[in-house]
Amino acid sequence: EIRDAALALLSDGPLKGKKALVTAGPTLEAIDPVRFISNRSSGKQGYAIAAALAELGAEVTLVSGPTNLAVPQGVKRIAVESAEEMLAASEAALPLDVAVMVAAVADWRPAQAADEKIKKDKAGIPAISLVETPDILATLAKGKKRPKLVVGFAAETENLEAHARAKIAKKGCDWIIANDVSGDVMGGAENEVLLITKDSAETWPRMAKEAVARKLAEKIAAELGAKPRQRK
Amino acid sequence: EIRDAALALLSDGPLKGKKALVTAGPTLEAIDPVRFISNRSSGKQGYAIAAALAELGAEVTLVSGPTNLAVPQGVKRIAVESAEEMLAASEAALPLDVAVMVAAVADWRPAQAADEKIKKDKAGIPAISLVETPDILATLAKGKKRPKLVVGFAAETENLEAHARAKIAKKGCDWIIANDVSGDVMGGAENEVLLITKDSAETWPRMAKEAVARKLAEKIAAELGAKPRQRK
Repeated sequence: EIRDAALALLSDGPLKGKKALVTAGPTLEAIDPVRFISNRSSGKQGYAIAAALAELGAEVTLVSGPTNLAVPQGVKRIAVESAEEMLAASEAALPLDVAVMVAAVADWRPAQAADEKIKKDKAGIPAISLVETPDILATLAKGKKRPKLVVGFAAETENLEAHARAKIAKKGCDWIIANDVSGDVMGGAENEVLLITKDSAETWPRMAKEAVARKLAEKIAAELGAKPRQRK
Repeated sequence: EIRDAALALLSDGPLKGKKALVTAGPTLEAIDPVRFISNRSSGKQGYAIAAALAELGAEVTLVSGPTNLAVPQGVKRIAVESAEEMLAASEAALPLDVAVMVAAVADWRPAQAADEKIKKDKAGIPAISLVETPDILATLAKGKKRPKLVVGFAAETENLEAHARAKIAKKGCDWIIANDVSGDVMGGAENEVLLITKDSAETWPRMAKEAVARKLAEKIAAELGAKPRQRK
């Protein structure tokens, strides 16, 4: 950790001295001690973004749900499972210059996680009643210590730009990376995205997730360069 | 595949010429194209058993839910997700000398997997209604082409032997390996099990999952040696 911080300080990249948070991977919401609800996010895009920001000199905290990926060089990873844990770890990383919320956070979790494994024979088929998980993106974007730049992701199967614009308005974030998951994107090596800001939209060609990450990191560096962070 | 079959035929082990099925890992039951219900099974114990049976010369088919494990040498792996897929792949492996059902098969799955990702905003909080999955162990143990020896696993948190005996009676299998999952067994490197047969019970000391696998493979070899398979 000390070594990573030192590396970030020594770096000459355009994000030198900037603090970045990236969330990545799925969340895992317990039904009981063995069963859970999760999703097919591989974490690849988020890990690639964390790596790209670190390469540009940022001090990067990566809050990650369960994945099989190695921690990128120079990145500090905090491993979490549930949306609630992800929120707590993300808030603990404040203050920040930029937060890139790539994780596929569960929208709902079981209302109660059973303490014991639910037995098949006990009482017929259980129902899983759900409650909403905390909205990590909106919490950070609307919080008192709001990062200078808050970037969300939106996985959509249709009307990408309209959904992304609605999400910017609702969540209070600055940019949305919208990607079309109607194909085989989740878990794949490539991504095809739109970058939506309050007043612009860019369509990026299909490219490797690492290339999406580098392009986004450069955009972030340009944006933060234009508005230097005020150290308190 | 041909090479593996050839290796099995060339082997001089006590299970030479025997056909074995091992199921391993969790199953994954879709809620929609991205969300699913699964469990914390790592697949380690099942993969170790497949490897141990292959080392004794058996021709091993490993029907596996999603894991991060490498295919053991000389083993043919069939990758599946749902309990229904696991049943179909297991039945396709018949006829068999021995079936060792180690997978942590979901007891329930969502009644319907949505074709599109369920949107958070659409209609409030969805309920997940569940239906029972097929009972793979009982289906094989009570089927027409029953394997000579059918071994089930039971993950329990209490009353291991009583639950295991009830499971033998209910499922129609020959042996149950009962393991206590009240501690940190799932995903761990070691296991502490009871081997329960219709008329005996053995407590095995806590040992590496590979050691459990070798001990079980030797037991299986002794059992099958006593009742040579009749080739039709």
